[in-house]
Amino acid sequence: MKVLLPFTLLLALPLHADPLPSWNKTPTKQAIVEFVEKVTTPGSPDYVVPAERIATFDNDGCLWSEQPMYFQAIYIFDRIKALAPEHPEWKEEEPFASVLKGDLKSALAGGKAALIKMAMATHANLTSEEFEKVVADWLASTKHPKTGLHYNEMVYQPMLELLAYLRAEGFKTFIVSGGGIDFLRVFAEDTYGVPPEQVVGSSLKAQYEVRDGKPVIVKSPELDFIDDKAGKPVGIHQHIGRRPIFAAGNSDGDFQMLEWTTAGEGPRFGMLVHHTDAEREFAYDRDSHVGTLVRGLDEGPGRGWTIVDMKADWKLVYPEPAE
Amino acid sequence: MKVLLPFTLLLALPLHADPLPSWNKTPTKQAIVEFVEKVTTPGSPDYVVPAERIATFDNDGCLWSEQPMYFQAIYIFDRIKALAPEHPEWKEEEPFASVLKGDLKSALAGGKAALIKMAMATHANLTSEEFEKVVADWLASTKHPKTGLHYNEMVYQPMLELLAYLRAEGFKTFIVSGGGIDFLRVFAEDTYGVPPEQVVGSSLKAQYEVRDGKPVIVKSPELDFIDDKAGKPVGIHQHIGRRPIFAAGNSDGDFQMLEWTTAGEGPRFGMLVHHTDAEREFAYDRDSHVGTLVRGLDEGPGRGWTIVDMKADWKLVYPEPAE
Repeated sequence: MKVLLPFTLLLALPLHADPLPSWNKTPTKQAIVEFVEKVTTPGSPDYVVPAERIATFDNDGCLWSEQPMYFQAIYIFDRIKALAPEHPEWKEEEPFASVLKGDLKSALAGGKAALIKMAMATHANLTSEEFEKVVADWLASTKHPKTGLHYNEMVYQPMLELLAYLRAEGFKTFIVSGGGIDFLRVFAEDTYGVPPEQVVGSSLKAQYEVRDGKPVIVKSPELDFIDDKAGKPVGIHQHIGRRPIFAAGNSDGDFQMLEWTTAGEGPRFGMLVHHTDAEREFAYDRDSHVGTLVRGLDEGPGRGWTIVDMKADWKLVYPEPAE
Repeated sequence: MKVLLPFTLLLALPLHADPLPSWNKTPTKQAIVEFVEKVTTPGSPDYVVPAERIATFDNDGCLWSEQPMYFQAIYIFDRIKALAPEHPEWKEEEPFASVLKGDLKSALAGGKAALIKMAMATHANLTSEEFEKVVADWLASTKHPKTGLHYNEMVYQPMLELLAYLRAEGFKTFIVSGGGIDFLRVFAEDTYGVPPEQVVGSSLKAQYEVRDGKPVIVKSPELDFIDDKAGKPVGIHQHIGRRPIFAAGNSDGDFQMLEWTTAGEGPRFGMLVHHTDAEREFAYDRDSHVGTLVRGLDEGPGRGWTIVDMKADWKLVYPEPAE
């Protein structure tokens, strides 16, 4: 489908170059390439027209790391600390009080409800432009406690190659994440080549206002949508309006997205990234507090889904640092 | 920006052909072409990178006709009549009773609340696939009472050319309509060349279910979002995630979309289609029950918005029938 590539990109791509150089030559890589070739080869019984080549990717644990906790949770904790002087009441109010004492375990003991409460308190009542700037500044100035890398450097090189490969083959790539849609949009285009209009995520409601003659969008302290588990096919329906033919995730939060994707007629690809590499990244699955993967491991192979073994399938985890 | 065109389209476009042949040579056409040229010419002080070339279009009264009432309202009335045997209670219950008696004026007397009630009753509890089929069948089998055309033939040829022109110049074109997002998606790709993922509209909530082993998306009888007036910039924010540089509408329901678009920095284009052609289409504005246009006429020109005079600016309204 080379005719659909922008001219400039076409000239930049050497013919027959390996589109996935950071993937080892394992059956996983072979399955990906075979799928892409059969859906893009005109005349193939499995040929899919470009408009239907929709690929969706989870973000946390699928495109970037998610340990020791979701990076957006770290952002929320950092914001709570930064905003604490304006909120003296937080010293007495959970889960804020625990965050301010540095006791993140207690802060998270309230589960999803506690996390949503903290997300609202730190995300709402900002204009879209203010929020974008705060997140961009945080990303530029904060480093991961273990790797010392910026969070948006802890992306998986093999997945960056997969995104680019699919796009070069006429796919439209989307992020479909439980994370915040506006948070993701701050870095998705630069980091993944995924433009804001191709990001689906959890959201707060928003209001349009004209403030001193200047129109603004203000994030409201009211939950709009949780893009996780059974919410993912719904988010895909509402935002994209057609069923993907390729979906990649890494946790049981992605189960329904893969189920919905692979239940469609014709060729389909479901992928789960299994975190097996304690040395180069992290190793976790069934018992992890983030990225819990039980049902996907139990049922995925029987459903024809490809389980990526990070340790065996990936030559490289994070991109090589620029010289 | 010809290098960004798909190869095949590039070969099909004669150089220097008029991209807007159904527009008369008026200042309106000149303003459109000047805007597009200045934002797409590299080196121009007003140059805009392709990723930021977002153009949004209202649908009812902007891309297709909306008289004697919104076509989706006609769909709703037709569905109420078709579903009436399953709902004997509708004979006594407004606004359904009035619809069944053919008294649409009384049915609509309840305003937006009545319309939403009817939309829910006719749109909800269908799977996404069932809904799509019902709408497609209706579009294929129903004709407009005055023109005898199928509803999706009552689209404006000059606007189809404008959509294609913008896309050929590297714009991404979106529909941002008060109409139902799933309703629009049934015909937007074939009719306008706008894929489902570039349609923003009003929506019901939806649920993901596995029914007899088959995953489905079911439209819920609960309002999710009204994409009208101040809702339009919000819908744009949630779906697209960046501010358009071009917006076209025709009613005060589009005011905030144009306000938000044209308040951005750099070159911006706001367009209102003014229905001035009683002979070839319909003539209405301030006192119309659909497409009411008051504030746009009063304030638009002072805000630098272009008011399209259908009668003077358009050589043709609907596409010429195929021979």
